[in-house]
Amino acid sequence: MTSGVSKKAVTVAVDAMGGDYAPQEIVKGAIEGARKEGIEIILVGQENAIRKEVMRYDISGLSIHVRNASEVIQEGESPVAALRRKPDASIAVATQLVKTHEADAVMSMGNTGAVMVSAIKILGKLKGIKSPSAGGLLSGFAPNTVVFDLGPTTDCKPHDLLSLAVMGCIVARKILGISNPTVALLSNGSEEGKGNLLVNKAYQIFKESNLNFIGNVEGNDIPAGKANVVVCDGFMGNILIKFCEGLGDSIIERLKVTFGKHLPNVDFDAVSNDLFALTHVAENGGPICGVDGVVIVGHGRSKAPQVADAIHIAKTVVTSNLVEELKTELGNLQ
Amino acid sequence: MTSGVSKKAVTVAVDAMGGDYAPQEIVKGAIEGARKEGIEIILVGQENAIRKEVMRYDISGLSIHVRNASEVIQEGESPVAALRRKPDASIAVATQLVKTHEADAVMSMGNTGAVMVSAIKILGKLKGIKSPSAGGLLSGFAPNTVVFDLGPTTDCKPHDLLSLAVMGCIVARKILGISNPTVALLSNGSEEGKGNLLVNKAYQIFKESNLNFIGNVEGNDIPAGKANVVVCDGFMGNILIKFCEGLGDSIIERLKVTFGKHLPNVDFDAVSNDLFALTHVAENGGPICGVDGVVIVGHGRSKAPQVADAIHIAKTVVTSNLVEELKTELGNLQ
Repeated sequence: MTSGVSKKAVTVAVDAMGGDYAPQEIVKGAIEGARKEGIEIILVGQENAIRKEVMRYDISGLSIHVRNASEVIQEGESPVAALRRKPDASIAVATQLVKTHEADAVMSMGNTGAVMVSAIKILGKLKGIKSPSAGGLLSGFAPNTVVFDLGPTTDCKPHDLLSLAVMGCIVARKILGISNPTVALLSNGSEEGKGNLLVNKAYQIFKESNLNFIGNVEGNDIPAGKANVVVCDGFMGNILIKFCEGLGDSIIERLKVTFGKHLPNVDFDAVSNDLFALTHVAENGGPICGVDGVVIVGHGRSKAPQVADAIHIAKTVVTSNLVEELKTELGNLQ
Repeated sequence: MTSGVSKKAVTVAVDAMGGDYAPQEIVKGAIEGARKEGIEIILVGQENAIRKEVMRYDISGLSIHVRNASEVIQEGESPVAALRRKPDASIAVATQLVKTHEADAVMSMGNTGAVMVSAIKILGKLKGIKSPSAGGLLSGFAPNTVVFDLGPTTDCKPHDLLSLAVMGCIVARKILGISNPTVALLSNGSEEGKGNLLVNKAYQIFKESNLNFIGNVEGNDIPAGKANVVVCDGFMGNILIKFCEGLGDSIIERLKVTFGKHLPNVDFDAVSNDLFALTHVAENGGPICGVDGVVIVGHGRSKAPQVADAIHIAKTVVTSNLVEELKTELGNLQ
């Protein structure tokens, strides 16, 4: 008999029907992730369609289960109405598995609003959180900078920005491995006193907190990576991340023309793919912060490699105890 | 004797001391502008320094005057305090020339805050304007899209966004030559109902206005040029324009590495200069909107060609009657 305690494997419930390439690419990526990460997978969705995909792969030695869910929420459906109309939707059933502790995390590349609403309704919000957040990397040029929020937290109060900062710090520590992340407020000038009313009030609260607060940063400081956690409301964050993607697209198009005469296609493709990845980081999955459970949401365009990456993130979030620690830290703010 | 009435030439008061390369590049650019545009120039600042620069050029046939102003406001000085301490500052004296109708416009590449405060204190704000604005192009990828505001209008009310839209339309018409500019609100989703409280309230007001309102646009729609006038507060606009510059810098740096192996320096320099210009459009001068007179402010880094361009803009703003028409349209909003 060995001494150590045998650790139970992490189990991830995967919404097999969510995403532009579901169920094919989701099933493929989930199996890839299960193999790489040594975790259990529960594929949730229309059983026949899922089993047909699973049969394409050699899953011997892996722990892959299927859970039937008869309905699917499409991209573009209104989340609240869709979840009411389709109680047996794959995202709802998958999230329920976290609630009942059959899974440690749920992961979806489907309708982001539906993932968010399922998480709030089924798992509940953490104490002190008005709206869960979906912050993360904004630009690949700053791989050590998360922006909180990129998601649905509009019309924040100064204290909401403090909650965002706390979530950002936990994500920077647990996912990026930064031990004492620097925190800054996004503003229209670096000096204290610059900014709108919200930023000015938050500045005073941040100064008195035990965050590693370095003051205000400006727009150009985000790609430059001047702080590890950049705090703004989700309205700003959402516009910035889409602006970053749009500008990346425009620059790639421009280079296609200006470089057409200089470079062989193969080199240009490499450069174009590199710039696309650096300006479209929302393609990667990330946790929804502020709900009572691990929920990972990724981009609808995700293919198998992105699904496998999201499964890696799910495992990291579960094993690092991110949600429990966030609960404690948010409790300390009260 | 000919019939037509002889038109008085446009006169621009140039703050010869404002900008990183003042007075050398400012004087050089102003003379260049005077020659190209056929206008009168009054160079304002320390007379000896200015005359020394003017002597380097052949100004025969041009109408170049010098007006002494003994003091200079530096970049980084607090505008209000500096203007109080230095009543004979070049920017104050130059702005005064517009007030007394000795000049039709004032132009400066100096401390933007000081230009703004001089304009407000000496020329006054137009009726209905809480804070003057400094909107304009945000990205060279969308040469037919102005973003209002890029400047100091933080903490806007819904009606302030309407004033910004009106200013944006006038600039789009008078400077870009677009006869019936489309107007959109910048938001985190394109559907009506998306956005923060401010955008949602403004949406209703815009719908009932006689603007050519096309609804909400998202961050990626700015470089794509989806609307001619994109409306957001200056806090958002300032962060976006600096983010655009920062991302441009990061991409140029990245290309320097990835292309180093493929391209001769000369080609790379052309590409790099092209991308810099496309992502740093604030380098160009533009009018401050909402003050009772023509005030053109440009970037501190401006050299002679940018100064000459700003003089062209000054002339366009004066001859197109932009301020008078803005006054009328803002009056109609009351």
